[in-house]
Amino acid sequence: MNPILAVGSVAFDSIKTPFGEASRVVGGAATYFAIAASFFTEVRIVAVVGDDFGANLEKVFGGRRIDLAGLEIVPGETFRWKGEYGFDLNSRETVYTHLNVFEQFKPKIPHSHKSSPFVFLGNIHPTLQSDVLDQVQRPKLVGADTMNYWIERTPEDLKKVLKRVDVLLINDSEARALAGEANLVKAARKIQAMGPKTLVIKRGEHGVLMTRTGGGFFAAPAMPLEDVFDPTGAGDTFAGGFLGYLASCEGVDDAALARAIIYGSTLASFAVEDFSVDRLLRLKQDDVTARFQEFKKLTHFDVV
Amino acid sequence: MNPILAVGSVAFDSIKTPFGEASRVVGGAATYFAIAASFFTEVRIVAVVGDDFGANLEKVFGGRRIDLAGLEIVPGETFRWKGEYGFDLNSRETVYTHLNVFEQFKPKIPHSHKSSPFVFLGNIHPTLQSDVLDQVQRPKLVGADTMNYWIERTPEDLKKVLKRVDVLLINDSEARALAGEANLVKAARKIQAMGPKTLVIKRGEHGVLMTRTGGGFFAAPAMPLEDVFDPTGAGDTFAGGFLGYLASCEGVDDAALARAIIYGSTLASFAVEDFSVDRLLRLKQDDVTARFQEFKKLTHFDVV
Repeated sequence: MNPILAVGSVAFDSIKTPFGEASRVVGGAATYFAIAASFFTEVRIVAVVGDDFGANLEKVFGGRRIDLAGLEIVPGETFRWKGEYGFDLNSRETVYTHLNVFEQFKPKIPHSHKSSPFVFLGNIHPTLQSDVLDQVQRPKLVGADTMNYWIERTPEDLKKVLKRVDVLLINDSEARALAGEANLVKAARKIQAMGPKTLVIKRGEHGVLMTRTGGGFFAAPAMPLEDVFDPTGAGDTFAGGFLGYLASCEGVDDAALARAIIYGSTLASFAVEDFSVDRLLRLKQDDVTARFQEFKKLTHFDVV
Repeated sequence: MNPILAVGSVAFDSIKTPFGEASRVVGGAATYFAIAASFFTEVRIVAVVGDDFGANLEKVFGGRRIDLAGLEIVPGETFRWKGEYGFDLNSRETVYTHLNVFEQFKPKIPHSHKSSPFVFLGNIHPTLQSDVLDQVQRPKLVGADTMNYWIERTPEDLKKVLKRVDVLLINDSEARALAGEANLVKAARKIQAMGPKTLVIKRGEHGVLMTRTGGGFFAAPAMPLEDVFDPTGAGDTFAGGFLGYLASCEGVDDAALARAIIYGSTLASFAVEDFSVDRLLRLKQDDVTARFQEFKKLTHFDVV
């Protein structure tokens, strides 16, 4: 079992969907990632919160395999984001983003975490992602996320860090933008040539597409759900389930990667069932196992 | 093996995509459906063409298990449609639709075809779909397609015929519109309550979702393709591969339905590789078998 060092945001979110509202609830990419990954392995968070975060630390991360030695608490307010979703939950609008204490965030890796075998670089400035890799010994596996904001504004910094990334997780429109190519298969080849040997393309309610070593792909649908309350954090939860499971495996091969995609999809399918991390906090290992089996039923067919 | 009676359009299409153009080439829902289904069973087309269709009949349908006794040739011009696709091939604009001889089309089922065990009602006026069912003996299985045009303009006629349909194949936006429900799982339940016990929701490049008898779903991705030239007819080809395979099975159960989805996806993945029905006309049984196996690789994961 390989511990994962995970750098990213821990935040307060305010969310409005057609099904309800939640105000100043715990969010942030590193939060969703860490809770999901902790079902499979130890997670070492590197992040920053303000002194207003208070008892949420214990409430959200307590009693889990989550190490907070790299989480700084500094005077000021925690990162805040507010978003509103449309009726189909696929479109969302950012009402505000207040970086607050996150604006001056410089990831500092505690000495005891520098030899972490797995590293996950959440969706922060690509130069900060590089800084993290500069501070650690060469890990067994580096996973990373990015977004259109960095693809458009800091493409050179992004390309520099991509050379050091093994597994890149991005959504389909980001993959097309990064590669400058509308066809997803060709876009995947171009991105692999930039560094990441494995590309995981997230398609929201349409599931996930992943490159395989032989040149082919693995594809998984999302679980069809009757009640989706809040899609916030689904992608980060997917990343946590995916890398968390991989880190728990003896070795990383195509079969392990395929199962990791299903574990990522499993965790993400729970995350959207309630606001914030509420469903993840109530989640039991047995729930995870049961839904993994449901994914098998969802996708299995016999060859005759 | 059950012969399929298939009613729908046989047409001339003009198509423009970012990768090229094709003018006055053979198209039409019944055309794509019949060629795809004929890989698995005998297909009996009920359609109309003008006297300008000429040698295309032999070129497209000749040498296949396709019975043309129900295909009328009448004086006048064949149905013509022109469409243009955007760069991502997901959006298309109809430049014109000339119904021509199709405007007066009244399906007439030849006596020898009235006992066809499988019936496919292509995307025509729901009252004509009902007319077809009135002319045949109760089939073992009735499959049907429809579109937003009929959902919006003739909802009562559509609901009447849906009561007599076993398997409805529609795309995701049509399913949402027909049910008046944004959530696809809830939409599926509502449509099942209208009659069809099996609902097949086509999601284009994102694959297919199908209801299962136990209350669950079966989901399949589309094959990721490097070169998609022309998406025209992909849905009709899917329907042909799906129902054609089902008709070739001893019985229709969840396992057969799941394989049928993969055969439908297999045929559709070929259809888009060239303009019109060109790729389907060159297709061999071995190609179909090989790509079916590729779908297994694309989606398979082990439970450990």
